[in-house]
Amino acid sequence: MSKKKVFILGSTGSIGVSTLDVIRLHKETFEVVGLTANKNVELLLKQVEEFNPKYVILRDRNLVNKLENNLRKETILLSGKEGLLTGTREAEYDILLSALVGFAGLQPTIEGIKRGKRIALANKETLVVAGEIITQLAKEFNSEIVPVDSEHSAIFQCFVGEDEKEAEKIILTASGGPFFKKSKEELKNVTVAEALNHPNWDMGSKVTIDSATMMNKGLEMIEARWLFDMPPAKIDVTIHPQSIIHSMVQFVDGSIKAQLSSPDMRLPIQYALTYPERLPNSFTSTKLTEIEEFSFFKPDLEKFECLQLAFDVMEMGGTAPCILNAANEIAVERFLKNEISFSAIPELIKEALNNIEVKPIENIETIIECDSLTRAYFKV
Amino acid sequence: MSKKKVFILGSTGSIGVSTLDVIRLHKETFEVVGLTANKNVELLLKQVEEFNPKYVILRDRNLVNKLENNLRKETILLSGKEGLLTGTREAEYDILLSALVGFAGLQPTIEGIKRGKRIALANKETLVVAGEIITQLAKEFNSEIVPVDSEHSAIFQCFVGEDEKEAEKIILTASGGPFFKKSKEELKNVTVAEALNHPNWDMGSKVTIDSATMMNKGLEMIEARWLFDMPPAKIDVTIHPQSIIHSMVQFVDGSIKAQLSSPDMRLPIQYALTYPERLPNSFTSTKLTEIEEFSFFKPDLEKFECLQLAFDVMEMGGTAPCILNAANEIAVERFLKNEISFSAIPELIKEALNNIEVKPIENIETIIECDSLTRAYFKV
Repeated sequence: MSKKKVFILGSTGSIGVSTLDVIRLHKETFEVVGLTANKNVELLLKQVEEFNPKYVILRDRNLVNKLENNLRKETILLSGKEGLLTGTREAEYDILLSALVGFAGLQPTIEGIKRGKRIALANKETLVVAGEIITQLAKEFNSEIVPVDSEHSAIFQCFVGEDEKEAEKIILTASGGPFFKKSKEELKNVTVAEALNHPNWDMGSKVTIDSATMMNKGLEMIEARWLFDMPPAKIDVTIHPQSIIHSMVQFVDGSIKAQLSSPDMRLPIQYALTYPERLPNSFTSTKLTEIEEFSFFKPDLEKFECLQLAFDVMEMGGTAPCILNAANEIAVERFLKNEISFSAIPELIKEALNNIEVKPIENIETIIECDSLTRAYFKV
Repeated sequence: MSKKKVFILGSTGSIGVSTLDVIRLHKETFEVVGLTANKNVELLLKQVEEFNPKYVILRDRNLVNKLENNLRKETILLSGKEGLLTGTREAEYDILLSALVGFAGLQPTIEGIKRGKRIALANKETLVVAGEIITQLAKEFNSEIVPVDSEHSAIFQCFVGEDEKEAEKIILTASGGPFFKKSKEELKNVTVAEALNHPNWDMGSKVTIDSATMMNKGLEMIEARWLFDMPPAKIDVTIHPQSIIHSMVQFVDGSIKAQLSSPDMRLPIQYALTYPERLPNSFTSTKLTEIEEFSFFKPDLEKFECLQLAFDVMEMGGTAPCILNAANEIAVERFLKNEISFSAIPELIKEALNNIEVKPIENIETIIECDSLTRAYFKV
């Protein structure tokens, strides 16, 4: 059997590194044909050396000179946003692992969809801002979207062999993040370091802050809405601090299916690559008898305003999620730079939603325009 | 669409009554074509009046006279063990719901299998004593066995769309029964009333005692071994006192799937009737945010000797499970009559296993003989 060819969008990020871990374990099954990074030339070079992909793409054009003399002759080096599009359009691959952070992942992912490839999707924003268009494109071009997020992978796994129309509710579990036990008052003064200290998962900094504000869960709700074709009313969130149950589906007959494992991203990544099969691996296995307790709590939507905002934009539809997503990216960036306080994050998003017009989504340009408009709004 | 015809073996027991509850809710989907009872003529008559089945079978021949003048002319009345065989052999049905208690369910269930019908299986003993033969027969006659036990239904549901060969472990959950917190010493003097007081499930008395000794879980392990074609080493038990997670499957990639619901037998019964579809119903729905805690404990095999015995006979194979099953039925009967103490139940089983020869299973006669032999051993 020939190896499956994997193109990794965002190989130096947390998901990308874990994906290469998975592929390293299953070299007889997968090969890497494309790697991309934003700025991390050093790590990218190491990865290129180990996996020898045909395509190497650096998003930051200014750093290309650090890369070009260190590649094999046959390697194709591309750069910038345009390079990402060219690579995903031209390279020969079976699976496009889409793990760019933020809005940047949207267009290269669409390239993969239009070619009818399997998309192992870790880039939330693709579905958050353009879910309606993306899912329609995927149908049209017969492209299979398999989620990589542990929550969506859980739901995807619960739906295997089931009829999505028989789902009554999708229940996303949330760890509650580092501030689950803090009061709304205490949240005002949390530091960047505190927000980056996630109890269960080791992730990138943008995602970790999103987890602290629970915006992460908000974005995941919107993602789930499109991925599983569920109306907003059928999507719910429960806080499960142990992060063992990764999400659940409740069916019309009252039966709930849940997917559980120790929190290791390599598991859902591997599943997205191997589905419908499962492969043995050497990741920490989940020993249930060693877990002594699972607990569940309703999320406090007054404290976690970002989650409430996500519920709101999901109902509003159109470009509302796009505005929320762009405003959130900017707010998180500013918080990470110590420019704004933690509790100012939802304030900035509300400001954007109040000042930028929500439009119906006609095509991908509507979204690109809305994203630019929102970012422009915040430029001083 | 024509209605699905259901023949219920054991309609006056706990499972039978719940099955009729389910059918009552879905009269447009199902019709009852056969009802059978052991001795409960009064309830059987009520059921016959409501559901008007073509076949009515009473196991106790001495009570037939109480029934015969109260039936419609067109109803076919049969009696005794032979009547159960004739009914399951002759009646026209799509689904045979097999809910007789104990060994008595084996032969009528085989009649349904040989006709290639779907077997909604609530009778543990069929698989416990004759699993090897039953699963082979089911394959040969293309009969689909869908379990009704909440645990096996959970596993069955977790396997939907999955490859059973990719399972690493089946984890049966156990409530721990009423004596989960008692010491081995305290177990010696528990009364029948205490043993019948199950914390989560409302079941028949045999099953309730089996749950108190954890033999129930032992029988379920053996059942699971055959139902899902799993070697004994891949079967495990965890105590989960809340009885919300009904069982789990761990796959080779480390992912675990679980099925959850509020403890209501009508749910797995309905699933066994409607599979692969799910139908909405009015049973209490499971509200996860109202559950505040799940816990898990390793079972104490020294305290729950019956569970250890089940592990042992599963490894021994052949007629060992048959001896265990028959000896357990007798021991439970004696305990319910206050003839022996609670802690004498495993002692009686051990005695039987030490004194009756374990043989390889050649055919159904091997099992019938072993069952008779074990029962004879205990006759004074």
